[in-house]
Amino acid sequence: MNILIQNGTIITMQNGRVIRQGAIAVEDKTIIEVGKTHELKRKYGRGYEKIDAKGKVVIPGLINTHQHAAMSLLRGYADDLPLQEWLEKWIWPIEKHTTPHDIYVGALLTAVESIMSGTTTVNTMYHYTPEENEAKAFADACLRGVIGHVCFSWRKKEDRKALQDLAKKWHNKADGLIRVSVDPHAPYTVDPEYMKELREIGKELARKHGSEKAPIIWHTHVAETSDEPRKIQKAFNIQLKNGIMEYLDSLGVLDRHVIAVHCVALTNKDIEIMKHRKVKVSHNPISNLKLASGVSPVPKMLKKGITVSLGTDSPCSNNTADMFEVIKATALLHKGVNKNPALMPAQRVLEMATIEGAKALSWENEIGSIEVNKKADLAIIDFRKPHLYPMHGEVSHLVYAARGADVETVIINGKIVMENKELTTVNVDKVMKAAEETKNNLLERLTRNIK
Amino acid sequence: MNILIQNGTIITMQNGRVIRQGAIAVEDKTIIEVGKTHELKRKYGRGYEKIDAKGKVVIPGLINTHQHAAMSLLRGYADDLPLQEWLEKWIWPIEKHTTPHDIYVGALLTAVESIMSGTTTVNTMYHYTPEENEAKAFADACLRGVIGHVCFSWRKKEDRKALQDLAKKWHNKADGLIRVSVDPHAPYTVDPEYMKELREIGKELARKHGSEKAPIIWHTHVAETSDEPRKIQKAFNIQLKNGIMEYLDSLGVLDRHVIAVHCVALTNKDIEIMKHRKVKVSHNPISNLKLASGVSPVPKMLKKGITVSLGTDSPCSNNTADMFEVIKATALLHKGVNKNPALMPAQRVLEMATIEGAKALSWENEIGSIEVNKKADLAIIDFRKPHLYPMHGEVSHLVYAARGADVETVIINGKIVMENKELTTVNVDKVMKAAEETKNNLLERLTRNIK
Repeated sequence: MNILIQNGTIITMQNGRVIRQGAIAVEDKTIIEVGKTHELKRKYGRGYEKIDAKGKVVIPGLINTHQHAAMSLLRGYADDLPLQEWLEKWIWPIEKHTTPHDIYVGALLTAVESIMSGTTTVNTMYHYTPEENEAKAFADACLRGVIGHVCFSWRKKEDRKALQDLAKKWHNKADGLIRVSVDPHAPYTVDPEYMKELREIGKELARKHGSEKAPIIWHTHVAETSDEPRKIQKAFNIQLKNGIMEYLDSLGVLDRHVIAVHCVALTNKDIEIMKHRKVKVSHNPISNLKLASGVSPVPKMLKKGITVSLGTDSPCSNNTADMFEVIKATALLHKGVNKNPALMPAQRVLEMATIEGAKALSWENEIGSIEVNKKADLAIIDFRKPHLYPMHGEVSHLVYAARGADVETVIINGKIVMENKELTTVNVDKVMKAAEETKNNLLERLTRNIK
Repeated sequence: MNILIQNGTIITMQNGRVIRQGAIAVEDKTIIEVGKTHELKRKYGRGYEKIDAKGKVVIPGLINTHQHAAMSLLRGYADDLPLQEWLEKWIWPIEKHTTPHDIYVGALLTAVESIMSGTTTVNTMYHYTPEENEAKAFADACLRGVIGHVCFSWRKKEDRKALQDLAKKWHNKADGLIRVSVDPHAPYTVDPEYMKELREIGKELARKHGSEKAPIIWHTHVAETSDEPRKIQKAFNIQLKNGIMEYLDSLGVLDRHVIAVHCVALTNKDIEIMKHRKVKVSHNPISNLKLASGVSPVPKMLKKGITVSLGTDSPCSNNTADMFEVIKATALLHKGVNKNPALMPAQRVLEMATIEGAKALSWENEIGSIEVNKKADLAIIDFRKPHLYPMHGEVSHLVYAARGADVETVIINGKIVMENKELTTVNVDKVMKAAEETKNNLLERLTRNIK
């Protein structure tokens, strides 16, 4: 389909370029021109579906670089608990009863919620099953995603099979919407030999199914809490010297296609190594606060020139998929804890949620900004709301005042997936009903201890 | 008007009572019965406007205990700046050009935004002018409020006059919607003699215009930043010994009708005194982070049994009036900085935004919970949204997943002020247009240096 968005304010996220009375022309999946409305509307007339963005602001779709999408079924199931109790008494016991269908329904609910709040790409880590999975859910909703399979030392055989199947069936599939990743859970649950093996598996899968333009990345939790070195020692009898990144680097697993999630408890040496190896970061401030993990040294990493992107984390530890909340939390938190109100200015934070997110997923050749030849992943935000009046600057409002609910229309891969708040790809009422039923069945299996 | 809300889940905030399939009967301004729908619908038939709350959750309207409502005209005008530069180069210069009409329009915009996000009472501190003012804006929108006039040592004469006029014209007026307060700006801008005088003025106004049931409270900023003792010394050559509360107590100004805003930089002695004097607190986490003031020791105050309520602060330092954001920020922040995920559980935080807010304003006899004989100040929240599915617990969703935009219908003082997201009291489009024009005129006067 061809589309002409016109009369809007375009926040391109390409070198801070903003176009008022702007227009974007889209052909098939791709942005073919960006400019002033009066110029573009002469060129793109008949055959272009027109979207009037008067009083609205167009941004590149937001990029959420850390999710466990299927876990929406557990939203609000367990809050306000100490971490070990939360995991051992609540999350892990119920997850044992999760079926492939649960994973599909949970991921579909997250896909719907993500689109509705202006997110067009989600990087998700969960258990892959060939029957039903997060990849199918995202493809059905037409949400762009990187789908990972999470790997643990205790299930190597299962993981190897899952990774092969995932890469073969889903990498660069669904019109290029879906890519896959190799996801070692964390340095304390994946032994060093298995880490190295997963690195080799990643390389092998990349050779078979990937390309320089569509790489298969690594997606892993690192340094979420300060007791991770202790956990590594306990699990593998390894004593870290200068932090976790040095340890991972000694295994030869760090490079520019690694996205390290959380990065809360880092040493200066860790940051040096990340910079040197071009490791990317997903910062999840809401989850880090809710689980009381601490505050990531984001300003320090940014100063070093490290790519830091933003993620919501799972609906269990946030509890929404709304990236606008994460954007605002990021802008606020680092000012407050560092006692410096000039840190993390609005423009910088919006970059983290868009173009830096694309870089973190090694996908900046196609997404993250509104530029000619990039894929048309766009969110149109209705600014005709009391909380977005009066106007002093669009970027300030996007970061400090806008909410997911202000998103009106979303385009992914050139397709209108939400128009005037109505999804075009899935029936939202049915998804909500399915989520409620699936959750009830899951709780029933837990209570009766049926797998 | 008589109203019967039925088929909803009622979160009463009265001792944690939740009623499923619940109903609320309202006559004139007052809640006359709360119970099960099947019982109430037999009793309240003809003559009662029915509101179907199926799939929805009814809560007491949220209470925002700190605003400068008129400042919405400066939303996004100056962000990400060091505090002194922000105040001296941006905020104070433009405020000099503010007219009474600007104050009215700004407050009206905040009133609209507040109602739309489920807030039914706002405690606001600004410059009172007899011609046009925040009280009139709130009364016009039918928003309950405590309207203060902010007092500074440098304008005592003007303040005295303003306070008299404000109390006479507005205390317990507009059908009991509006109350007034005496607002010393802060301990570093109000000298000790003037503090004492303002205490006497407060008592005198209370005798003339107030009552035990409708007291005239004190509303003041205290201990917003750690350098406040230094500022007090600089301004008045007073050396504090054990903190600001001891100083204020030595002036004889602290009692149960004082609401102290921010309370970030407190000594243990301060907290002792607050407990002893029954001083109330307004906690403004978003503003404290944005202005890099620090983090208030809220868990410590709560442990002492001090009443801690929640506020947004001004649209300049937040930048929205959405109390749902403040609720979530409160639940998250203290877990994170204290490294304890069990702190500030959801139910407790929701109390701070409702019944504790009412106590903080000395208004708990009429508002803050859904109880027979209290005023009908209610927010009905539509839970049929993807981000509020599936259901494990309403209170968790209200705190961690709901947003202001989920509020569908709002009742204040028994009047439906918003129905299915449409305001009944003011024309929202006109208010937005007026805010934009008023802001443009204000910027024009600033540029041309016209008062």
